[in-house]
Amino acid sequence: MSPAASSKAKSPPALPGYDDVQMAAVRIAGKALRTPIIENPALNDLVGGRVLIKPECLQRTGSFKFRGAFNRISQLGLDAREGGVVAYSSGNHAQGVAAAAQLKDMPAVIVMPEDTPEIKVSNTAGYGAEVVQYDRGSEDREAIAKDLAKKRGAVIVPPYDDANIIAGQGTAGLEFAQDLSARGVSPNALLVPAGGGGLLAGTSLAFEGLFPDTEIYSVEPEDFDDHLRSLKSGKRRKNKQATGSVCDALLSAQPGKMTFAINQPRATGGLAVSDDEVRLAVAYAFRTLKLVVEPGGAVCLAAVLAGKLDCKDRNIAIVLSGGNVDPGLFSEIVNAH
Amino acid sequence: MSPAASSKAKSPPALPGYDDVQMAAVRIAGKALRTPIIENPALNDLVGGRVLIKPECLQRTGSFKFRGAFNRISQLGLDAREGGVVAYSSGNHAQGVAAAAQLKDMPAVIVMPEDTPEIKVSNTAGYGAEVVQYDRGSEDREAIAKDLAKKRGAVIVPPYDDANIIAGQGTAGLEFAQDLSARGVSPNALLVPAGGGGLLAGTSLAFEGLFPDTEIYSVEPEDFDDHLRSLKSGKRRKNKQATGSVCDALLSAQPGKMTFAINQPRATGGLAVSDDEVRLAVAYAFRTLKLVVEPGGAVCLAAVLAGKLDCKDRNIAIVLSGGNVDPGLFSEIVNAH
Repeated sequence: MSPAASSKAKSPPALPGYDDVQMAAVRIAGKALRTPIIENPALNDLVGGRVLIKPECLQRTGSFKFRGAFNRISQLGLDAREGGVVAYSSGNHAQGVAAAAQLKDMPAVIVMPEDTPEIKVSNTAGYGAEVVQYDRGSEDREAIAKDLAKKRGAVIVPPYDDANIIAGQGTAGLEFAQDLSARGVSPNALLVPAGGGGLLAGTSLAFEGLFPDTEIYSVEPEDFDDHLRSLKSGKRRKNKQATGSVCDALLSAQPGKMTFAINQPRATGGLAVSDDEVRLAVAYAFRTLKLVVEPGGAVCLAAVLAGKLDCKDRNIAIVLSGGNVDPGLFSEIVNAH
Repeated sequence: MSPAASSKAKSPPALPGYDDVQMAAVRIAGKALRTPIIENPALNDLVGGRVLIKPECLQRTGSFKFRGAFNRISQLGLDAREGGVVAYSSGNHAQGVAAAAQLKDMPAVIVMPEDTPEIKVSNTAGYGAEVVQYDRGSEDREAIAKDLAKKRGAVIVPPYDDANIIAGQGTAGLEFAQDLSARGVSPNALLVPAGGGGLLAGTSLAFEGLFPDTEIYSVEPEDFDDHLRSLKSGKRRKNKQATGSVCDALLSAQPGKMTFAINQPRATGGLAVSDDEVRLAVAYAFRTLKLVVEPGGAVCLAAVLAGKLDCKDRNIAIVLSGGNVDPGLFSEIVNAH
């Protein structure tokens, strides 16, 4: 870029690096939980390898999203605290932002789709946030959030395309890599659920620092495989539809600009699972792992159980990204399988 | 006792001690999981203190029972392996024995009540064991087991009144105490579910070694509060009924002889919870902790949530002892609360 062009064009935001993830880990210490690694002998026997599980369903607010939200919000200046924060989210980011704002004594407004699982709406309100709902098919959540932010003098906390959000989500990967290392386990592959790609990006940065040779895969619902196609083509691809998977947490339209810039050179590829495979995984987690995992949080387990990658005699690291599932849907799934 | 009496009477079996728990930990290493400590900010906020959770629902076979079973069975001589083992159990001990026998390539026969949750029956068979069912109201499970053992030349693995079973269950307490110590947390109280009292006994031995000042409480269903009454009176008391609580894992008739001899001088007292309080706890574990806990495994959480002991500004260590619950019952509970 020429100096002239540089002075005119808005320069792209700097991408976070491994050191940003390390600093985020310092910020969230004592606020986010250091979730354990869980391993299950029956699952290992089933796949003929070792499956190392990072259960972020056990995280504060029931998903990894608190990590990024707290890393972002805790860095807001005192002047920004009165207006508070605004976020748009299918649910888990909403809860993360609401809980982080509450810990920092800030007001929070959350813009949520009308088809959000009830548990995510009521939990968000339970963290003291105001919830504004919109129609996923006809309304633009970013426009609604911008309007609210302007009116209230609030700061928008985006769900994934933000250096501090990515670095915060990366702390899940950092802990995972550190704890695998402490156990003497070198992971052959890492599987991460992908919606906007924030968790994948942050986790990829963390693994690059500690396990640079580990293969990294995004995992998505079949009809929302924008990461798979984007990684394959080298360009950001969109999904054809906006709704229509049981994985409500993973329905972003396409990979984020920043997240894709991080993921594209680091991820080995993408995996996709059907809704039926996801339901089987949620039921397996109930029956055998004894963990409550929401559909979107179970895609990596689904990929392992459905044989989407070779696990034989390998160490496979997977993230279960959340556990906020309505009792009705959960019951339907565990009784059917 | 006079020398003459001593030579005639059968001397009581030696009680296990802290060192037996330590040796059991060596035996089960790499076979049983070292379950993590889990803490939940929402639960801590709710009770105004810290609740440190040992989630044995995540253990191999879905409950702590594998620990004692493996510690006992792994010490059987080669000559005992052909006849295998026999056990009687309401379900979790059955699965523990079946899985331990399978790991040691031994046959196992399990005598189970007809009203055992289906998941426990099918899981037990899934570990390669033969299941024999009986009527809890009219038949004597110990007699059935003795008869089977005689016919097959098998060794009976009792559910709790055995030094190696107690020492094995105590490894859950040993890990718990060690990991609390590593976190710099000194527990004011420890709550342990009590059926026959094996987990309570083993865990009490472990805490005596590392946290001798921690108050220790048994927790039971209201109508099966034999430990509470026995600890209060100093003598083993029986329950009036054999069935009638949602906590199928905790319906032993009375404390064991050996377990009570260990627990009586060590336990501070007993707590009792209603079935409704237990159901609320199972639902809370689903919604907030994201753990699948069976009713009998949730009694300590129920005691904490129902305010059965003072948690304010205290560190309360609780064991969630198992997660083997039928999907139908689980669904009913999580949808009702």
